[in-house]
Amino acid sequence: MTDDTIQKRFGERIRTLRQLRKLSQEELAFRAGIHRTYLGGIERGERNPALRNINALAEALSVSLSELFKLGDKTRF
Amino acid sequence: MTDDTIQKRFGERIRTLRQLRKLSQEELAFRAGIHRTYLGGIERGERNPALRNINALAEALSVSLSELFKLGDKTRF
Repeated sequence: MTDDTIQKRFGERIRTLRQLRKLSQEELAFRAGIHRTYLGGIERGERNPALRNINALAEALSVSLSELFKLGDKTRF
Repeated sequence: MTDDTIQKRFGERIRTLRQLRKLSQEELAFRAGIHRTYLGGIERGERNPALRNINALAEALSVSLSELFKLGDKTRF
């Protein structure tokens, strides 16, 4: 998977999970302790987030990191 | 999970998988396209690697990202 692809798929996964939980970008960013515009960049696949922020997003979305990285998984849970 | 904890557990997971595959740090670092000393820091839990390097490590270890992040999982595979 190329660098751009992994960023795009990770961003899509974050957006899918956020929308499943009916959270706005503001709410998710606040819970994860990151800036809303940074979250927007992550969701558009423009950012290369590091492990700590990835972990904070997983916790804010109430999923394990392993679940978070089921990147092809569009199923609801 | 605190920032330090996630870095430590991620580092342990990388080390476990690397050793299961009988790879040296040099070999894994070369395959993942990162510097050996950087890999050493990751394994010691001292680094906060970003998504692209995390993905490169998963590919170098021939595991999915979801598998890579089964952080408690010491089982062989």
